[in-house]
Amino acid sequence: MKIDCIYDDKSAENAASSAVAALKAAGALAATAESCTGGLISKLITDVPGASLVYAGSIVSYSNEIKERLLGVPPDILQKHGAVSEPTALLMARGARRACGADVAVSATGIAGPGGGTADKPVGTVWVAISCDCWEEAFVLNLPPDESRTTIRRTTAVFALNLLAEAASRIKQSKSINKN
Amino acid sequence: MKIDCIYDDKSAENAASSAVAALKAAGALAATAESCTGGLISKLITDVPGASLVYAGSIVSYSNEIKERLLGVPPDILQKHGAVSEPTALLMARGARRACGADVAVSATGIAGPGGGTADKPVGTVWVAISCDCWEEAFVLNLPPDESRTTIRRTTAVFALNLLAEAASRIKQSKSINKN
Repeated sequence: MKIDCIYDDKSAENAASSAVAALKAAGALAATAESCTGGLISKLITDVPGASLVYAGSIVSYSNEIKERLLGVPPDILQKHGAVSEPTALLMARGARRACGADVAVSATGIAGPGGGTADKPVGTVWVAISCDCWEEAFVLNLPPDESRTTIRRTTAVFALNLLAEAASRIKQSKSINKN
Repeated sequence: MKIDCIYDDKSAENAASSAVAALKAAGALAATAESCTGGLISKLITDVPGASLVYAGSIVSYSNEIKERLLGVPPDILQKHGAVSEPTALLMARGARRACGADVAVSATGIAGPGGGTADKPVGTVWVAISCDCWEEAFVLNLPPDESRTTIRRTTAVFALNLLAEAASRIKQSKSINKN
């Protein structure tokens, strides 16, 4: 997926505020599992006063060992597909949801640079996944490899926050359908 | 402990770079356990390219449930002393070190405001703890209650990063003593 890079802090703040508002409206508790963003998504959510009402916490799995130990990503998945892959992203989101007892979780795993890129997975390759009862999906972002680490991480965080807001809106809708 | 508030992003960047450099020099792996800072310490560490060599990850325990489930803080400690207390901060640091298989961990738990303050623990009350083989200690920061959430969180993060750098330097020293 090609998406526009985010260059300003304000867009990130707005995405976090919208996600928190959508989670409040849905009465849903969220969690995050972060690799390449390293805590940025969690930092943006908790920048919003009152986020504690809808946010359980995050597992920042910067090493593969943490992905295995705390998020339950099996070692053979990491070995076969790599840390930056669709199955790992999905399992990270599921793992964070389970570990944090949350209704919805979003994950991000990618190559923020400047090092770490390969021919197959250049800098800017990022997988983001969402997991809740009514929706589970992973997205690959192919961000320009010559973008800065800051821009790649910020753009990833905004994409993840938008997914969280969309998931909250689907949860709200599915609750209202179940009620009727 | 009265410490000066940090108003600029540059000081936070510098503290993170120094902590990563000290950890590299010590050959030590670090982890964090964050409550009030909500991922900011982790975000600052992973802003530094190459941080993955010395950083395992973080448990952002925004809810008390995560402090119990993932960091192993006993419920009776949380009930007796509260989430913002010396024993909770120490147990969070120990818990992150154990959960992440790290040599050293730093924790932060406090009231960043604008809500959540009480007469006993006003906004700006923050406990920060460090845990490694050669050093374990908790510090209370009494930051001005009228400071912004951003300033309270940033000041806490810089204090925690400085502790991490100091711990790395002590680890390096203790390694060199053991070698001789």
